[in-house]
Amino acid sequence: MQEDPRVTFGRRLSELRKVKGWSQEKLSLESGIARSYLGGVERGQRNIALLNICRLAETLEVPIGELFQHWR
Amino acid sequence: MQEDPRVTFGRRLSELRKVKGWSQEKLSLESGIARSYLGGVERGQRNIALLNICRLAETLEVPIGELFQHWR
Repeated sequence: MQEDPRVTFGRRLSELRKVKGWSQEKLSLESGIARSYLGGVERGQRNIALLNICRLAETLEVPIGELFQHWR
Repeated sequence: MQEDPRVTFGRRLSELRKVKGWSQEKLSLESGIARSYLGGVERGQRNIALLNICRLAETLEVPIGELFQHWR
């Protein structure tokens, strides 16, 4: 059974955040997205939408496709 | 000013659908996503969420990153 995309996305977001050496608080501060929501995204519990996906990619200074690297 | 991501995504979705030679009706039938919603996504009017993005990539048989090709 294929992994839930929310879990895959959450793991990838967490990876990219840690590469920058940022805490969730820092990513929340920089992106303007609530820390509690980001926590839910990273735990694979949120069905994040396009505009927030783009905001996170921009904040992390990666092309949006990077958030979907290593996916099927 | 950077293009609205919803417009960029909608254009890319339309491109990939046409590469397959599919109408919006066909993509709707194959994906189980309402045609009217797909029309709104392709017109750049919908803030589509992750699970639907993944369902469209799977239906179009492309890696999800393909929907974000040629983005910044």
